[in-house]
This record gives sequence, C-alpha cells and structure tokens, in this order.
Amino acid sequence: MNASGVQPSSRPGGRTARNRAAVRDATLAELAEHGYAGLTVEAVATRSGVHKTTVYRRWGGVDGLVVDALALADEDDWAPPDTGSLDGDLRELAREVVRTFAAAQTAFVAAAFQSERAAAALHAFYAERHRRAEEVVTRAVARGEVPAGTDAGAVVKAAVAPFFFRVVIAGELATTELADQSAAAVAHAARAGIYA
Amino acid sequence: MNASGVQPSSRPGGRTARNRAAVRDATLAELAEHGYAGLTVEAVATRSGVHKTTVYRRWGGVDGLVVDALALADEDDWAPPDTGSLDGDLRELAREVVRTFAAAQTAFVAAAFQSERAAAALHAFYAERHRRAEEVVTRAVARGEVPAGTDAGAVVKAAVAPFFFRVVIAGELATTELADQSAAAVAHAARAGIYA
Repeated sequence: MNASGVQPSSRPGGRTARNRAAVRDATLAELAEHGYAGLTVEAVATRSGVHKTTVYRRWGGVDGLVVDALALADEDDWAPPDTGSLDGDLRELAREVVRTFAAAQTAFVAAAFQSERAAAALHAFYAERHRRAEEVVTRAVARGEVPAGTDAGAVVKAAVAPFFFRVVIAGELATTELADQSAAAVAHAARAGIYA
Repeated sequence: MNASGVQPSSRPGGRTARNRAAVRDATLAELAEHGYAGLTVEAVATRSGVHKTTVYRRWGGVDGLVVDALALADEDDWAPPDTGSLDGDLRELAREVVRTFAAAQTAFVAAAFQSERAAAALHAFYAERHRRAEEVVTRAVARGEVPAGTDAGAVVKAAVAPFFFRVVIAGELATTELADQSAAAVAHAARAGIYA
C-alpha cells in the first residue's frame, strides 16, 4: 500500500512499477509546465502512455497523482552529502536544494494549499528528507565539531529554510551564494552550541 | 492609487477610507475562516456592510480584495523592535512573526499560488516589511556589534525564514523557542561577519 492508498496489483519491477514510474514522470512534467491548477488526469494519461481509465482506477484523480509522485520520491535512495565537515555538508545540502528546486516542486507546495491529502504527502516527503539529512549533524557530533545534544532537525531545517522563504514567500531568486551563506551561518551557530 | 489599481474617490478619513477598512477587515476574517478558496465578494460585502455592487465596482473581485488588504497593511506604521541589541531585536522580530502569523496570513500565501496579482502584492508586502526591519541591522552596525557591510536584508530574512519553512513547507508548528533559537543563531553568525 502506497501513500495514495492504492495497492499495486503486480510484483515490483513489473508493468505496475513501470506504469507507476511513467505516471509519476508525466505528473512531474505536467506540474512543471502547467502548475497544480493545470494538472489533469487526461494530460498525464496521454503523456505517460497509460490508459486514462487505468489512471483513474489506480490514482483516483489529480490529488492521487500528486500524492503518489511524492510517495515515490520518498522511496528513492537519496542520502545526504558526506564531505567530512558540517560546513561542507550543509553547504552541499543547501546547494542541492537551490539546484534541484524546480517548477514541479513549487507546484507541490501550491497543491498543498489546495488539498489536505497533498499537504500531508508534502509534509511526509520533507519529514523523510530531513530525517535522512540529520545524519550530517550526527556525524558532526561524532567528530566533536558540535556539542552532543545538538538538535539535528533544527540545524538541517535552518540551513535550507532561507531558500524556501525567499522563493516561496518573498518571491526572490535563490542563489548559490545564499546557500553558502546560510550553510556557513548555521554551521557557525551549531558549533557555538546554539542548537543544543 | 493603491496597489489594487483603484483610485479612492473621496478624501482620506471619509466614507471611502471607512469602507476600505471595513472591507479589509471582512476580507481578513473571511480568509481566516474559509481560506482563499472560500473567499467570495458576497460574503465580504455582507460582513463589511458595504454594498455588493460597491465592492465589485471598487475592488473588482476576490483578487482585488486580497491585493488591497495587503496594500493597506503596507500603509500601517509598523516599526521593528528596538531593544538595544541585535540579539534582542531579532528575537522580538521572530517572536512577533510567530505570534501574529495566523490563518489569514496562510491564506495570503495560498492566494499567491493561485493569482499572479496576489503573488505580486504578497511579495511587495514582505519587501516593505523587510525594508523597515533592516533598521535593526543598521543600528547594530552603528553600535559596532556587527561589521560594516553586513547584508541587512539577509540577516532579517534568515532570522524569520525557519518559521515560514516549518509552518508552510514542513507542516510543523512554530514556537517561541524556535524564534529565540533562530534569532540567536543569526545574530551569532552576523557578529562573526558571515552576512558581510
């Protein structure tokens, strides 16, 4: 059972898994081009090559497409950077967010404002990403860079928050310079024990 | 001419100004109760006591109501805290955001995802708030707390960003503790010259 509440009906790697990946890719492409308001089951079916009735039956509708695309993203093998220092790890983490945050991601945030199911899926997606990213702080504690008891979640979220704030709330552009500045500031504060 | 593109037709403090304030209050109340998706001219007219035809003529529709509510907020006399230290000022600033960010504000962000006019008005609102808040950094430079050349906008936005990120993107609650931690971290990094 995936997050969309749909039980895949055949084994992993089979046609169901291929359809699911094709529908996810089509959903992301449609979100990037037309936003959440312009997302339709018809367009996703056409673009993915999966029959419209199959899309309706398996995903239910637009909300189900968004929820399953986020659920699939959570099943990937993403791991945080491991550069050998908290400064370096947070910098790579922040740069990755700046580099990869695209129209489709903004559309997910838009979807979250219009659908409780999409909001829950978005929050679950970020919770899982943050949980994995906390490893950079665990390693920094082990290296003695930051005090034991440092709140790993607070450090990770503080490093990436300025990016989301500027793009989503203030309507500005995010830059590599902003990522580096944010990472350096948070690492400096973490070393001083402010997140402990 | 206000941001909604509507020219008030009588002097400030007259019936036009009273109507505008009443419509703004009704818009905020409706946004808080029903969100942007549930905002209607009819409900705002009923709640404000301003005739529906007047609301349509002056504000044009739902978008105009949102835009003008944000424009009115920009005309207030808000000034940033002045506690005598950058730590204190950023802490009060962050706490104020945690204290005052309510359902209506979340609805403004939702509106920005569905309307380009609302997005432009939201971005203009935050640009003006940030511009005023930069004074706390200017004062810190004058006191010698942080280096000359410190990017005041970056400091202010970094202090409040974690709050918006947690509430809007991650779906968490924001707390006074988060505000204090964020303010302390940013002030510490600013003193070290990281935002210079």
